[in-house]
Amino acid sequence: METITRHSISKERFLEVRHQTELICKSLQAEDVSIQPAEFVSPPKWHLAHTTWFFEQFVLTEYQSDYKVFNDDFAYYFNSYYNNVGKRVMRAERGLMTRPTLQEVLEYRAYVNAQLSEFISKGTSEDISNIIEIGLQHEQQHQELLIYDIKYIFGNQPSFPVLDYKIQLQAENEPQKFLQIKEGIYEIGHNNEGFCFDNELGRHKVYLHDFEISNQLVTNLEYIAFIDAGGYEDFNYWHAEGWDFVQNNDLKAPLYWHKVDGKWMHYTLNGFLKVDGDLPVTHVTFYEAFAFAQWKGMRLPTEFEWEVASPKFNYGQLWEWTNSAYLPYPNYTKVDGALGEYNGKFMVNQMVLRGGSVATSKNHCSPTYRNFFQPDMRWLFSGIRLAK
Amino acid sequence: METITRHSISKERFLEVRHQTELICKSLQAEDVSIQPAEFVSPPKWHLAHTTWFFEQFVLTEYQSDYKVFNDDFAYYFNSYYNNVGKRVMRAERGLMTRPTLQEVLEYRAYVNAQLSEFISKGTSEDISNIIEIGLQHEQQHQELLIYDIKYIFGNQPSFPVLDYKIQLQAENEPQKFLQIKEGIYEIGHNNEGFCFDNELGRHKVYLHDFEISNQLVTNLEYIAFIDAGGYEDFNYWHAEGWDFVQNNDLKAPLYWHKVDGKWMHYTLNGFLKVDGDLPVTHVTFYEAFAFAQWKGMRLPTEFEWEVASPKFNYGQLWEWTNSAYLPYPNYTKVDGALGEYNGKFMVNQMVLRGGSVATSKNHCSPTYRNFFQPDMRWLFSGIRLAK
Amino acid sequence: METITRHSISKERFLEVRHQTELICKSLQAEDVSIQPAEFVSPPKWHLAHTTWFFEQFVLTEYQSDYKVFNDDFAYYFNSYYNNVGKRVMRAERGLMTRPTLQEVLEYRAYVNAQLSEFISKGTSEDISNIIEIGLQHEQQHQELLIYDIKYIFGNQPSFPVLDYKIQLQAENEPQKFLQIKEGIYEIGHNNEGFCFDNELGRHKVYLHDFEISNQLVTNLEYIAFIDAGGYEDFNYWHAEGWDFVQNNDLKAPLYWHKVDGKWMHYTLNGFLKVDGDLPVTHVTFYEAFAFAQWKGMRLPTEFEWEVASPKFNYGQLWEWTNSAYLPYPNYTKVDGALGEYNGKFMVNQMVLRGGSVATSKNHCSPTYRNFFQPDMRWLFSGIRLAK
Amino acid sequence: METITRHSISKERFLEVRHQTELICKSLQAEDVSIQPAEFVSPPKWHLAHTTWFFEQFVLTEYQSDYKVFNDDFAYYFNSYYNNVGKRVMRAERGLMTRPTLQEVLEYRAYVNAQLSEFISKGTSEDISNIIEIGLQHEQQHQELLIYDIKYIFGNQPSFPVLDYKIQLQAENEPQKFLQIKEGIYEIGHNNEGFCFDNELGRHKVYLHDFEISNQLVTNLEYIAFIDAGGYEDFNYWHAEGWDFVQNNDLKAPLYWHKVDGKWMHYTLNGFLKVDGDLPVTHVTFYEAFAFAQWKGMRLPTEFEWEVASPKFNYGQLWEWTNSAYLPYPNYTKVDGALGEYNGKFMVNQMVLRGGSVATSKNHCSPTYRNFFQPDMRWLFSGIRLAK
Ligand SMILES: [Fe+3]
Ligand SMILES: [Fe+3]
Ligand SMILES: [Fe+3]
Ligand SMILES: [Fe+3]
Repeated sequence: METITRHSISKERFLEVRHQTELICKSLQAEDVSIQPAEFVSPPKWHLAHTTWFFEQFVLTEYQSDYKVFNDDFAYYFNSYYNNVGKRVMRAERGLMTRPTLQEVLEYRAYVNAQLSEFISKGTSEDISNIIEIGLQHEQQHQELLIYDIKYIFGNQPSFPVLDYKIQLQAENEPQKFLQIKEGIYEIGHNNEGFCFDNELGRHKVYLHDFEISNQLVTNLEYIAFIDAGGYEDFNYWHAEGWDFVQNNDLKAPLYWHKVDGKWMHYTLNGFLKVDGDLPVTHVTFYEAFAFAQWKGMRLPTEFEWEVASPKFNYGQLWEWTNSAYLPYPNYTKVDGALGEYNGKFMVNQMVLRGGSVATSKNHCSPTYRNFFQPDMRWLFSGIRLAK
Repeated sequence: METITRHSISKERFLEVRHQTELICKSLQAEDVSIQPAEFVSPPKWHLAHTTWFFEQFVLTEYQSDYKVFNDDFAYYFNSYYNNVGKRVMRAERGLMTRPTLQEVLEYRAYVNAQLSEFISKGTSEDISNIIEIGLQHEQQHQELLIYDIKYIFGNQPSFPVLDYKIQLQAENEPQKFLQIKEGIYEIGHNNEGFCFDNELGRHKVYLHDFEISNQLVTNLEYIAFIDAGGYEDFNYWHAEGWDFVQNNDLKAPLYWHKVDGKWMHYTLNGFLKVDGDLPVTHVTFYEAFAFAQWKGMRLPTEFEWEVASPKFNYGQLWEWTNSAYLPYPNYTKVDGALGEYNGKFMVNQMVLRGGSVATSKNHCSPTYRNFFQPDMRWLFSGIRLAK
Repeated sequence: METITRHSISKERFLEVRHQTELICKSLQAEDVSIQPAEFVSPPKWHLAHTTWFFEQFVLTEYQSDYKVFNDDFAYYFNSYYNNVGKRVMRAERGLMTRPTLQEVLEYRAYVNAQLSEFISKGTSEDISNIIEIGLQHEQQHQELLIYDIKYIFGNQPSFPVLDYKIQLQAENEPQKFLQIKEGIYEIGHNNEGFCFDNELGRHKVYLHDFEISNQLVTNLEYIAFIDAGGYEDFNYWHAEGWDFVQNNDLKAPLYWHKVDGKWMHYTLNGFLKVDGDLPVTHVTFYEAFAFAQWKGMRLPTEFEWEVASPKFNYGQLWEWTNSAYLPYPNYTKVDGALGEYNGKFMVNQMVLRGGSVATSKNHCSPTYRNFFQPDMRWLFSGIRLAK
Repeated sequence: METITRHSISKERFLEVRHQTELICKSLQAEDVSIQPAEFVSPPKWHLAHTTWFFEQFVLTEYQSDYKVFNDDFAYYFNSYYNNVGKRVMRAERGLMTRPTLQEVLEYRAYVNAQLSEFISKGTSEDISNIIEIGLQHEQQHQELLIYDIKYIFGNQPSFPVLDYKIQLQAENEPQKFLQIKEGIYEIGHNNEGFCFDNELGRHKVYLHDFEISNQLVTNLEYIAFIDAGGYEDFNYWHAEGWDFVQNNDLKAPLYWHKVDGKWMHYTLNGFLKVDGDLPVTHVTFYEAFAFAQWKGMRLPTEFEWEVASPKFNYGQLWEWTNSAYLPYPNYTKVDGALGEYNGKFMVNQMVLRGGSVATSKNHCSPTYRNFFQPDMRWLFSGIRLAK
């Protein structure tokens, strides 16, 4: 894999990342961790085990002689989508596995942590360090998904539980302005310093024309204005496919929003709260982001415009939908084997998001990082930045 | 409600029935009790709470002055299908509720048990005794459903857990013979001694023609002969609708059966075991029961034939599919209000089963008891008795 | 097959029945005859060909030496559900066959008519006469289905075409009264005089209790009262399954009814007309018939009550939903081979209708005739008679 | 609309394009023209009427004083997806309309042709000429869709009819080679000479890196090699979404291919024929085109690469799947009103195809023309050109 690690992995870093996953889950009850309320959600217990299996499968089993697998069945239970590695429980059936219990999965984590710590202590080649680094980046990606999934599990039941883990959006307090970028040739993609995923590689030139981009995310107040102006009732703002989605799902507002006595409330991981107009709007589909921009007479930036302009604005609170489809960079090639299934096979019918979010693990995301989701997804912490 | 209680309810009987529900669940983990792997399955936690809510709603709230409801939201969470009582969590969404936790539900049970014990101690009118009796019968029905649902939850995941609760079929060791019943007028329905459900009432006359009925249930060995003879591949034995079901679901054997190295194995609550040819076959749909009988050149009895002949054979291991649709007896009338929703509204597109099963609670079932399910259901402990 | 023909078939009768099918279709355009707007509808061209294929397959191919099949592919195209006869175009795909054209199908009809006329002229054994008789009865059944299907094809497009074929309901002008029938043993089933289907055979005794039955069908005026009283909004009147059907299909009135400027209009084969309050209500599901009766505080008769009481009232305008499931009579046995697929394999999850309709071919229906449909069907000419 | 017509429309050109549509349909029977075997297919009669309605709605009704609409209901029947123009028959219900008949639709065409010919004779402004030009381009697009739809209607029924209209692929007889294109800035988009659609406008610069592109389309022989090598069984070649599509639809070969006695046959509009290895492969999804390229160790070109390289190779037999998602060019803006719904609202989850096909009307397509379809579509005349 052409991803790069300049430093070797420290045991401390390894354990810190692993610990973070458990921190996210610390206020979950055993009842919370096994269900799968929608196919795109995975049970938290599955995340806890699957990230562990990744290290067991790709590091310990491969490289530590005499490694004793914790449980022979776990590879079958907790493989995600690596067809190369063997059969697995189908994605839609992850929520059927009540066993192993949360306790057993935590023991699995402890066992693998101990084994891998010892393995690291003995020193690792650059190749193996790279794989461990991917495992940690992978775990951080699952940390973010864990937060989406917990929110979905909590937000879709009548008691709206609170998660004891700090996730808090902030208002962006500067006056809005549109930053101007000049036409020309720009370089896009990762510069090979520090870790990156294969889809960021192949730094290459693109030609951009003059454009302007907002220094701020769209706020709840602005979004409520769109709702109040009938944005969800006027097909002119929408893609045909987006309009069908609005009709079929009776969409009227972002996910987790409820109108109570004429006021917009929403479920957050801190509880069921009044929507704060100053905060950036989140949990919108690409379709909604696009329609909002149309209504404003503007558009969404491309991922290339975003990457070029990003040094000039703050980002990182919400993943920003771009108007770029998720496609390979020039000279992109899938690596062989299981790790090659990581990115390339998703490069159709998905849109790129840039920037990171409050749910993203620290130091995980960079300005060249390409996140991607289907345009109808909204359980992620997505947001909107306008361009023109 | 025209159901009859001759005796008043004792606190001991109340607590015994309630305790039985917890006994069934005692080896479940918290992870096991919240999931709903199919729409017809309810999470065990839901059964535990719903049966409790029944007493709270129909007895304590109604008749005990100053009763303080345990949790105002529980009526919404744990109502099943009593439209008259208010809105409720949709059946298909029971598996979304990870909260309240199992622990909280057990506290809810303890609270209602204590309150109702005290309420009973003060003496109850016949009307109220009747309602409590219905609550206990209702809880016993849910005890049976609990066993079906736990089996489905355990049987649909790769680790095949064992339930610590005795459920064991026995071989029927007498030689098979066909009992002969003479043509004539017979009386059908409950005789008003002891408890019964409203659908059994209206004892009435039916005219039966000569028929014969087996003294035994069909065994696994006989059923394997049907499979081996190509029973699942020959449409001639099947209802058109049953044949579609076989094709669409790629049916090849009863539920929980797996062919391993050429041998039939099946998941039971005691583990993953070799199919024992001497035991009665179970977990078959009505379609399969009918097709098996056709293949044998025989038929299933009607529920009237079954009721008339039942004193002459042993029953109670498995619910026996009859060839009778679930329809009202002459003069059947739905009672007003919520309890009227118990039976009458299901009297279309379901088939009657008679006899009780190893999962049926003791003293719950009688020879006039009419169980009923859609013909494609097979997670119940169903069996086959032949007639001709 | 145990169906009985007392007389041998005349060429005139054969041609008269065959001609009737073409009369029904005479005002259809070629564009009308190939589409299948719902799976339960067959294209008119298919009916024209399939009824012809029946005679070709079961009479000419079997019994006329040197018979030359009109087109070898037609058996594949126009078999309906006789699995025994060979592969066939799936029911849901009948509407894909634009070829052969209507003209070719009419030539097919003429060819088979000529061949079979000549075959009949030479005299036929009782066995063969019986099969031809079944073919004619079969064609008459398809004549009725043709009318349902044409109405569905015409009623589901914006131009509401008129069919040039007389179908007209009449008001029942006598005062309503409830006929009283005494408890006792009655005989049910066909008496073997004249033709009948296998499902009517096995004349047998049933025991009926005292009941009353209306001398009239429910009118549109009475049904509008049910609608206006909120019948479609109150779950108490409905089977649970019926209530789901109402919700899922947003049912508010019988099929083909439209509210225009506050008045009920409906599509009939004579055009788009104001609903006439004096005429019997039609195009209702079993669920609606049941709910209407519940709302009235009455019930639907069983098919046995209906058969016993039928000499005392007029019937034949609409098929009357009974509260009887379609089940075999005692001693019913499926005949071997393809003709055995006619009735028996539908004996699950269907309800019996009795009496015939204005769309029924003359002399086709008798008081013992058992029609049957799934309870959610409403494109047939169904009606409601109350009992209590 | 910013599309450009340099010349004014001649009556001859108008009638020639209109006549072409009827030529395509001349061997269709009335039975063929009303059905809709899949939602993405429109009945041929609908195409005939809809293209006519376009001229009536956007030209005659708007600009010809005293124009008498042929039939007031036709706007409702034959609008396609112009939400701005009013309600319309839903796309999935086009196949329900057996009326008006083919004959009436042909009369509608004649009426509008006569009216518009006269209208043109009087001279038209550039604005109106532009709209008529769009109407003609629109009709040519429907001519191509007509051919796809007729093929689908004919290819999905057992009799495989032949269309009397010349559609014939040719072998590309030059030796295969890969053309080399140098890195640099290139101009993309329409140069404003002659007609174009709005999605081609906004000629702009892109930066391309070195690439190579084949001078030929992939042949049936090459594609059969992919099949024989297990291409449809190895997930490694496929997008995750493509692999799901293969599994769910049991895909084993291009559309219309059937394996008969070990040989590949396929339905073509000239009949059911042996697959000719020398001809270019067609009727593949984007998923298949991508998987084939992966298997070859190559890739599909982007639409920009294709446009830049296209002067160096022959094209026009098949629409060539590119690896570019259908997205707006810089500065793309939707025009106001109904015509603005033409292109922009489809710019999500579709892939661009370039080049034209044997089903494309003469003079309709240019090297900047951007066709687009969902990646799972294969009833179009699609093909594969490799790049690396
Ligand atoms: Fe993963
Ligand atoms: Fe219950
Ligand atoms: Fe038939
Ligand atoms: Fe169009």
